[in-house]
Amino acid sequence: MSKGTETRRRIISQAAALFNRRGYEGSSLQDLMKATGLEKGGIYRHFSSKEELAALAFQHAWNDAMAAREQDMDGLTNHVDRLKQYISNFVHCRPSVPGGCPLLNTAIDADDGNPVLRDHARKALKDWQKKLEAMIADGIDARQIRRRTDKRRLANLIIASLEGALMVARLDKSEQALHVVEAHLHDYIEREVRKGGPK
Amino acid sequence: MSKGTETRRRIISQAAALFNRRGYEGSSLQDLMKATGLEKGGIYRHFSSKEELAALAFQHAWNDAMAAREQDMDGLTNHVDRLKQYISNFVHCRPSVPGGCPLLNTAIDADDGNPVLRDHARKALKDWQKKLEAMIADGIDARQIRRRTDKRRLANLIIASLEGALMVARLDKSEQALHVVEAHLHDYIEREVRKGGPK
Repeated sequence: MSKGTETRRRIISQAAALFNRRGYEGSSLQDLMKATGLEKGGIYRHFSSKEELAALAFQHAWNDAMAAREQDMDGLTNHVDRLKQYISNFVHCRPSVPGGCPLLNTAIDADDGNPVLRDHARKALKDWQKKLEAMIADGIDARQIRRRTDKRRLANLIIASLEGALMVARLDKSEQALHVVEAHLHDYIEREVRKGGPK
Repeated sequence: MSKGTETRRRIISQAAALFNRRGYEGSSLQDLMKATGLEKGGIYRHFSSKEELAALAFQHAWNDAMAAREQDMDGLTNHVDRLKQYISNFVHCRPSVPGGCPLLNTAIDADDGNPVLRDHARKALKDWQKKLEAMIADGIDARQIRRRTDKRRLANLIIASLEGALMVARLDKSEQALHVVEAHLHDYIEREVRKGGPK
Protein backbone atom coordinates (compact mmCIF):
# COMPACT_ATOMS: atom_id res chain seq x y z
CA MET A 1 0.00 0.00 0.00
CA SER A 2 1.48 3.41 -0.95
CA LYS A 3 2.06 5.96 1.80
CA GLY A 4 -0.66 8.17 0.31
CA THR A 5 -3.21 5.35 0.32
CA GLU A 6 -2.24 4.45 3.87
CA THR A 7 -2.64 8.04 5.06
CA ARG A 8 -5.99 8.30 3.31
CA ARG A 9 -7.22 5.15 5.03
CA ARG A 10 -5.97 6.33 8.40
CA ILE A 11 -7.78 9.68 8.01
CA ILE A 12 -11.02 7.91 7.06
CA SER A 13 -10.78 5.62 10.08
CA GLN A 14 -10.02 8.46 12.52
CA ALA A 15 -12.69 10.68 10.98
CA ALA A 16 -15.21 7.82 11.29
CA ALA A 17 -14.71 7.69 15.08
CA LEU A 18 -15.19 11.46 15.25
CA PHE A 19 -18.22 11.78 12.92
CA ASN A 20 -19.94 8.76 14.51
CA ARG A 21 -19.74 10.38 17.94
CA ARG A 22 -20.14 14.06 17.14
CA GLY A 23 -22.14 14.09 13.92
CA TYR A 24 -21.43 15.95 10.70
CA GLU A 25 -22.29 19.44 11.94
CA GLY A 26 -20.69 18.80 15.33
CA SER A 27 -17.32 17.86 13.80
CA SER A 28 -15.32 20.98 12.96
CA LEU A 29 -12.11 21.26 10.94
CA GLN A 30 -10.35 21.81 14.28
CA ASP A 31 -11.77 18.51 15.56
CA LEU A 32 -10.67 16.72 12.38
CA MET A 33 -7.16 18.18 12.67
CA LYS A 34 -6.96 17.10 16.31
CA ALA A 35 -8.27 13.59 15.57
CA THR A 36 -5.85 13.01 12.69
CA GLY A 37 -2.87 15.03 13.90
CA LEU A 38 -2.76 16.69 10.47
CA GLU A 39 -3.07 20.27 9.23
CA LYS A 40 -5.95 21.31 6.98
CA GLY A 41 -3.79 20.89 3.87
CA GLY A 42 -2.70 17.43 4.99
CA ILE A 43 -6.32 16.32 5.24
CA TYR A 44 -7.76 17.97 2.16
CA ARG A 45 -4.96 16.82 -0.08
CA HIS A 46 -6.75 13.45 0.08
CA PHE A 47 -10.41 14.54 -0.07
CA SER A 48 -12.25 17.11 -2.12
CA SER A 49 -14.49 18.25 0.76
CA LYS A 50 -15.65 17.58 4.33
CA GLU A 51 -18.75 16.02 2.76
CA GLU A 52 -16.68 13.52 0.76
CA LEU A 53 -14.66 12.60 3.84
CA ALA A 54 -17.84 12.22 5.93
CA ALA A 55 -19.41 9.94 3.31
CA LEU A 56 -16.29 7.72 3.20
CA ALA A 57 -16.12 7.74 7.02
CA PHE A 58 -19.78 6.67 7.23
CA GLN A 59 -19.15 3.83 4.77
CA HIS A 60 -16.11 2.72 6.79
CA ALA A 61 -18.08 2.76 10.08
CA TRP A 62 -21.01 0.97 8.46
CA ASN A 63 -18.85 -1.79 6.95
CA ASP A 64 -17.25 -2.22 10.36
CA ALA A 65 -20.66 -2.49 12.07
CA MET A 66 -21.96 -4.97 9.48
CA ALA A 67 -18.86 -7.14 9.92
CA ALA A 68 -19.31 -7.18 13.72
CA ARG A 69 -22.91 -8.35 13.25
CA GLU A 70 -21.94 -11.24 10.99
CA GLN A 71 -19.32 -12.93 13.11
CA ASP A 72 -19.66 -16.47 14.53
CA MET A 73 -22.18 -17.44 11.86
CA ASP A 74 -20.05 -19.68 9.66
CA GLY A 75 -20.65 -22.78 11.78
CA LEU A 76 -24.43 -22.40 11.72
CA THR A 77 -26.19 -24.23 8.93
CA ASN A 78 -29.79 -23.78 10.07
CA HIS A 79 -31.15 -20.49 8.73
CA VAL A 80 -33.36 -19.82 11.77
CA ASP A 81 -30.34 -20.23 14.05
CA ARG A 82 -28.38 -17.88 11.78
CA LEU A 83 -31.09 -15.23 12.07
CA LYS A 84 -31.10 -15.57 15.86
CA GLN A 85 -27.29 -15.38 15.99
CA TYR A 86 -27.39 -12.25 13.85
CA ILE A 87 -29.73 -10.64 16.39
CA SER A 88 -27.51 -11.69 19.29
CA ASN A 89 -24.43 -10.33 17.51
CA PHE A 90 -26.12 -6.95 17.20
CA VAL A 91 -26.89 -7.02 20.94
CA HIS A 92 -23.55 -8.31 22.23
CA CYS A 93 -20.82 -7.30 19.75
CA ARG A 94 -19.72 -3.70 19.69
CA PRO A 95 -18.21 -2.51 16.40
CA SER A 96 -14.69 -1.10 16.67
CA VAL A 97 -15.78 2.39 15.58
CA PRO A 98 -17.11 4.01 18.79
CA GLY A 99 -20.29 6.05 19.14
CA GLY A 100 -23.13 3.59 18.50
CA CYS A 101 -24.73 2.46 15.25
CA PRO A 102 -23.52 4.60 12.31
CA LEU A 103 -26.84 4.12 10.52
CA LEU A 104 -28.87 5.44 13.45
CA ASN A 105 -26.45 8.32 14.01
CA THR A 106 -26.28 9.34 10.35
CA ALA A 107 -30.00 8.86 9.75
CA ILE A 108 -30.89 11.20 12.61
CA ASP A 109 -28.00 13.58 12.01
CA ALA A 110 -28.73 13.99 8.29
CA ASP A 111 -32.51 13.74 8.65
CA ASP A 112 -33.10 17.37 7.79
CA GLY A 113 -29.46 18.13 7.09
CA ASN A 114 -26.87 16.96 4.59
CA PRO A 115 -28.59 15.25 1.60
CA VAL A 116 -25.46 13.32 0.49
CA LEU A 117 -25.08 11.71 3.91
CA ARG A 118 -28.81 10.97 4.05
CA ASP A 119 -28.54 9.18 0.68
CA HIS A 120 -25.67 7.09 2.01
CA ALA A 121 -27.67 6.20 5.13
CA ARG A 122 -30.71 5.34 3.01
CA LYS A 123 -28.63 3.06 0.79
CA ALA A 124 -27.13 1.38 3.89
CA LEU A 125 -30.64 0.73 5.24
CA LYS A 126 -31.75 -0.75 1.91
CA ASP A 127 -28.67 -3.01 1.82
CA TRP A 128 -29.38 -4.13 5.38
CA GLN A 129 -33.05 -4.86 4.58
CA LYS A 130 -31.98 -6.84 1.50
CA LYS A 131 -29.38 -8.80 3.48
CA LEU A 132 -31.96 -9.86 6.08
CA GLU A 133 -34.57 -10.59 3.40
CA ALA A 134 -32.03 -12.84 1.65
CA MET A 135 -31.32 -14.68 4.93
CA ILE A 136 -35.07 -15.24 5.38
CA ALA A 137 -35.49 -16.32 1.73
CA ASP A 138 -32.69 -18.87 2.18
CA GLY A 139 -34.54 -20.23 5.21
CA ILE A 140 -37.78 -20.51 3.24
CA ASP A 141 -35.98 -22.29 0.36
CA ALA A 142 -34.41 -24.70 2.86
CA ARG A 143 -37.85 -25.34 4.39
CA GLN A 144 -36.63 -24.15 7.77
CA ILE A 145 -38.66 -20.92 7.75
CA ARG A 146 -42.41 -20.91 7.17
CA ARG A 147 -43.37 -20.15 3.61
CA ARG A 148 -45.94 -17.47 4.55
CA THR A 149 -43.29 -15.34 6.32
CA ASP A 150 -43.29 -11.80 4.86
CA LYS A 151 -39.57 -11.20 4.28
CA ARG A 152 -39.73 -7.41 4.12
CA ARG A 153 -41.92 -7.12 7.21
CA LEU A 154 -39.76 -9.44 9.31
CA ALA A 155 -36.60 -7.64 8.18
CA ASN A 156 -38.10 -4.28 9.15
CA LEU A 157 -39.31 -5.61 12.50
CA ILE A 158 -35.82 -6.85 13.36
CA ILE A 159 -34.05 -3.67 12.19
CA ALA A 160 -36.49 -1.30 13.90
CA SER A 161 -36.49 -3.21 17.20
CA LEU A 162 -32.70 -3.49 17.37
CA GLU A 163 -32.00 0.11 16.40
CA GLY A 164 -34.56 1.48 18.85
CA ALA A 165 -33.22 -0.76 21.62
CA LEU A 166 -29.70 0.50 20.98
CA MET A 167 -30.87 4.10 21.28
CA VAL A 168 -32.72 3.38 24.55
CA ALA A 169 -29.78 1.39 25.96
CA ARG A 170 -27.26 4.12 25.21
CA LEU A 171 -29.44 6.85 26.68
CA ASP A 172 -30.46 4.68 29.65
CA LYS A 173 -26.87 3.59 30.31
CA SER A 174 -28.28 0.09 30.66
CA GLU A 175 -28.27 -2.89 28.31
CA GLN A 176 -31.77 -3.92 29.41
CA ALA A 177 -33.63 -2.67 26.33
CA LEU A 178 -31.22 -4.61 24.08
CA HIS A 179 -31.64 -7.80 26.11
CA VAL A 180 -35.44 -7.42 26.17
CA VAL A 181 -35.55 -7.03 22.40
CA GLU A 182 -33.13 -9.93 21.84
CA ALA A 183 -35.26 -12.30 23.98
CA HIS A 184 -38.48 -11.00 22.41
CA LEU A 185 -37.28 -11.47 18.82
CA HIS A 186 -35.85 -14.92 19.61
CA ASP A 187 -39.19 -16.00 21.11
CA TYR A 188 -41.10 -14.56 18.19
CA ILE A 189 -38.86 -16.33 15.65
CA GLU A 190 -39.19 -19.68 17.45
CA ARG A 191 -42.95 -19.33 17.63
CA GLU A 192 -43.94 -17.71 14.36
CA VAL A 193 -41.04 -18.06 11.94
CA ARG A 194 -39.37 -21.44 12.49
CA LYS A 195 -41.09 -24.12 10.45
CA GLY A 196 -42.60 -26.73 12.69
CA GLY A 197 -42.34 -24.46 15.75
CA PRO A 198 -45.13 -24.29 18.35
CA LYS A 199 -48.65 -23.00 17.55
CA MET B 1 -49.83 36.95 29.36
CA SER B 2 -47.31 39.82 29.24
CA LYS B 3 -45.69 40.71 25.92
CA GLY B 4 -42.33 39.47 27.26
CA THR B 5 -43.76 36.08 28.26
CA GLU B 6 -45.50 35.80 24.91
CA THR B 7 -42.29 36.58 22.99
CA ARG B 8 -40.38 34.06 25.13
CA ARG B 9 -42.92 31.34 24.36
CA ARG B 10 -42.89 32.16 20.67
CA ILE B 11 -39.07 31.93 20.55
CA ILE B 12 -39.14 28.55 22.35
CA SER B 13 -41.72 27.19 19.93
CA GLN B 14 -39.85 28.43 16.83
CA ALA B 15 -36.52 27.24 18.19
CA ALA B 16 -38.06 23.83 18.92
CA ALA B 17 -38.94 23.36 15.24
CA LEU B 18 -35.39 24.36 14.29
CA PHE B 19 -33.49 22.29 16.88
CA ASN B 20 -35.69 19.23 16.30
CA ARG B 21 -34.84 19.24 12.61
CA ARG B 22 -31.25 20.51 12.58
CA GLY B 23 -29.89 19.44 15.97
CA TYR B 24 -28.05 21.53 18.54
CA GLU B 25 -24.74 21.82 16.69
CA GLY B 26 -26.50 22.20 13.36
CA SER B 27 -28.55 25.22 14.51
CA SER B 28 -26.50 28.41 14.29
CA LEU B 29 -27.32 31.82 15.72
CA GLN B 30 -28.05 32.86 12.11
CA ASP B 31 -30.59 30.02 11.85
CA LEU B 32 -32.20 31.05 15.16
CA MET B 33 -32.43 34.68 14.02
CA LYS B 34 -34.00 33.61 10.74
CA ALA B 35 -36.48 31.27 12.47
CA THR B 36 -37.60 33.85 15.02
CA GLY B 37 -37.23 37.03 12.94
CA LEU B 38 -35.30 38.57 15.84
CA GLU B 39 -31.78 39.95 16.28
CA LYS B 40 -29.32 38.29 18.63
CA GLY B 41 -30.15 40.75 21.44
CA GLY B 42 -33.86 40.15 20.97
CA ILE B 43 -33.37 36.40 21.50
CA TYR B 44 -30.82 36.46 24.30
CA ARG B 45 -32.71 39.04 26.32
CA HIS B 46 -34.98 36.10 27.21
CA PHE B 47 -32.43 33.28 27.62
CA SER B 48 -29.02 33.08 29.26
CA SER B 49 -27.49 30.87 26.54
CA LYS B 50 -28.12 28.74 23.44
CA GLU B 51 -27.99 25.73 25.77
CA GLU B 52 -30.81 27.06 27.98
CA LEU B 53 -32.93 27.84 24.91
CA ALA B 54 -32.22 24.36 23.45
CA ALA B 55 -33.22 22.68 26.73
CA LEU B 56 -36.51 24.63 26.88
CA ALA B 57 -37.11 23.92 23.18
CA PHE B 58 -36.57 20.19 23.76
CA GLN B 59 -39.01 20.23 26.67
CA HIS B 60 -41.58 22.05 24.54
CA ALA B 61 -41.19 19.56 21.65
CA TRP B 62 -41.31 16.61 24.05
CA ASN B 63 -44.48 17.82 25.80
CA ASP B 64 -46.05 18.31 22.39
CA ALA B 65 -45.09 14.76 21.31
CA MET B 66 -46.37 13.23 24.56
CA ALA B 67 -49.69 15.06 24.18
CA ALA B 68 -50.09 13.77 20.60
CA ARG B 69 -49.53 10.20 21.84
CA GLU B 70 -52.20 10.46 24.52
CA GLN B 71 -55.15 11.66 22.48
CA ASP B 72 -58.37 9.67 21.99
CA MET B 73 -57.78 7.64 25.12
CA ASP B 74 -60.40 9.18 27.43
CA GLY B 75 -63.22 6.95 26.20
CA LEU B 76 -61.24 3.72 26.72
CA THR B 77 -61.73 2.08 30.10
CA ASN B 78 -59.94 -1.22 29.43
CA HIS B 79 -56.23 -0.85 30.15
CA VAL B 80 -55.14 -3.24 27.41
CA ASP B 81 -57.12 -1.23 24.86
CA ARG B 82 -55.51 1.95 26.24
CA LEU B 83 -52.04 0.51 25.73
CA LYS B 84 -52.89 -0.50 22.17
CA GLN B 85 -54.37 2.93 21.45
CA TYR B 86 -51.20 4.55 22.81
CA ILE B 87 -49.13 2.51 20.34
CA SER B 88 -51.46 3.43 17.46
CA ASN B 89 -51.28 7.10 18.43
CA PHE B 90 -47.49 6.98 18.18
CA VAL B 91 -47.77 5.41 14.73
CA HIS B 92 -50.54 7.59 13.28
CA CYS B 93 -50.44 10.99 15.03
CA ARG B 94 -47.69 13.38 14.10
CA PRO B 95 -46.76 15.93 16.79
CA SER B 96 -47.05 19.58 15.70
CA VAL B 97 -43.31 20.22 16.11
CA PRO B 98 -41.74 18.94 12.84
CA GLY B 99 -38.61 16.79 12.52
CA GLY B 100 -39.53 13.46 14.11
CA CYS B 101 -39.40 12.32 17.73
CA PRO B 102 -37.57 14.90 19.89
CA LEU B 103 -36.34 12.15 22.22
CA LEU B 104 -34.71 10.18 19.40
CA ASN B 105 -33.24 13.32 17.84
CA THR B 106 -31.87 14.71 21.09
CA ALA B 107 -30.62 11.33 22.35
CA ILE B 108 -28.57 10.79 19.18
CA ASP B 109 -27.57 14.42 18.80
CA ALA B 110 -26.37 14.78 22.40
CA ASP B 111 -25.04 11.22 22.68
CA ASP B 112 -21.42 12.28 22.77
CA GLY B 113 -22.19 15.98 22.75
CA ASN B 114 -23.96 18.43 25.01
CA PRO B 115 -24.35 16.93 28.52
CA VAL B 116 -27.23 19.23 29.56
CA LEU B 117 -29.32 18.16 26.57
CA ARG B 118 -28.41 14.52 27.17
CA ASP B 119 -29.65 14.83 30.78
CA HIS B 120 -32.94 16.29 29.55
CA ALA B 121 -33.33 13.45 27.05
CA ARG B 122 -32.49 10.87 29.74
CA LYS B 123 -35.11 12.36 32.08
CA ALA B 124 -37.69 12.34 29.26
CA LEU B 125 -36.97 8.65 28.62
CA LYS B 126 -37.34 7.84 32.33
CA ASP B 127 -40.65 9.74 32.47
CA TRP B 128 -41.87 7.86 29.41
CA GLN B 129 -40.85 4.47 30.87
CA LYS B 130 -42.64 5.37 34.14
CA LYS B 131 -45.77 6.46 32.31
CA LEU B 132 -46.01 3.16 30.41
CA GLU B 133 -45.15 1.15 33.54
CA ALA B 134 -47.99 2.95 35.37
CA MET B 135 -50.41 2.13 32.53
CA ILE B 136 -49.39 -1.53 32.76
CA ALA B 137 -49.64 -1.51 36.58
CA ASP B 138 -53.18 -0.10 36.33
CA GLY B 139 -54.05 -2.97 34.01
CA ILE B 140 -52.64 -5.54 36.44
CA ASP B 141 -54.55 -3.96 39.34
CA ALA B 142 -57.75 -4.04 37.28
CA ARG B 143 -57.08 -7.73 36.44
CA GLN B 144 -57.04 -6.94 32.73
CA ILE B 145 -53.29 -7.50 32.29
CA ARG B 146 -51.57 -10.72 33.40
CA ARG B 147 -49.98 -10.46 36.81
CA ARG B 148 -46.64 -11.93 35.68
CA THR B 149 -46.10 -9.15 33.10
CA ASP B 150 -42.74 -7.44 33.70
CA LYS B 151 -43.70 -3.75 33.56
CA ARG B 152 -40.23 -2.38 32.86
CA ARG B 153 -39.48 -4.94 30.15
CA LEU B 154 -42.78 -4.38 28.36
CA ALA B 155 -42.35 -0.59 28.56
CA ASN B 156 -38.84 -0.86 27.09
CA LEU B 157 -40.01 -3.22 24.34
CA ILE B 158 -42.73 -0.77 23.29
CA ILE B 159 -40.48 2.29 23.43
CA ALA B 160 -37.56 0.66 21.60
CA SER B 161 -39.76 -0.83 18.85
CA LEU B 162 -41.64 2.41 18.21
CA GLU B 163 -38.58 4.66 18.21
CA GLY B 164 -36.64 2.33 15.93
CA ALA B 165 -39.60 2.04 13.58
CA LEU B 166 -39.87 5.82 13.39
CA MET B 167 -36.20 6.09 12.45
CA VAL B 168 -36.54 3.43 9.74
CA ALA B 169 -39.77 4.95 8.41
CA ARG B 170 -38.28 8.44 8.14
CA LEU B 171 -35.14 7.20 6.40
CA ASP B 172 -37.09 4.78 4.20
CA LYS B 173 -39.68 7.43 3.30
CA SER B 174 -42.27 4.72 3.96
CA GLU B 175 -44.59 4.12 6.88
CA GLN B 176 -44.16 0.33 6.57
CA ALA B 177 -41.82 -0.15 9.54
CA LEU B 178 -44.26 1.77 11.79
CA HIS B 179 -47.22 -0.31 10.61
CA VAL B 180 -45.28 -3.57 11.02
CA VAL B 181 -44.33 -2.66 14.59
CA GLU B 182 -47.87 -1.51 15.42
CA ALA B 183 -49.38 -4.80 14.22
CA HIS B 184 -46.63 -6.82 15.91
CA LEU B 185 -47.04 -5.12 19.30
CA HIS B 186 -50.84 -5.34 19.10
CA ASP B 187 -50.61 -9.10 18.40
CA TYR B 188 -48.10 -9.59 21.18
CA ILE B 189 -50.24 -7.69 23.68
CA GLU B 190 -53.35 -9.69 22.76
CA ARG B 191 -51.48 -12.97 23.05
CA GLU B 192 -49.14 -12.47 25.99
CA VAL B 193 -50.32 -9.47 27.96
CA ARG B 194 -54.13 -9.41 27.96
CA LYS B 195 -55.49 -11.50 30.78
CA GLY B 196 -57.53 -14.40 29.44
CA GLY B 197 -56.07 -13.98 25.93
CA PRO B 198 -55.10 -17.01 23.81
CA LYS B 199 -52.35 -19.44 24.89
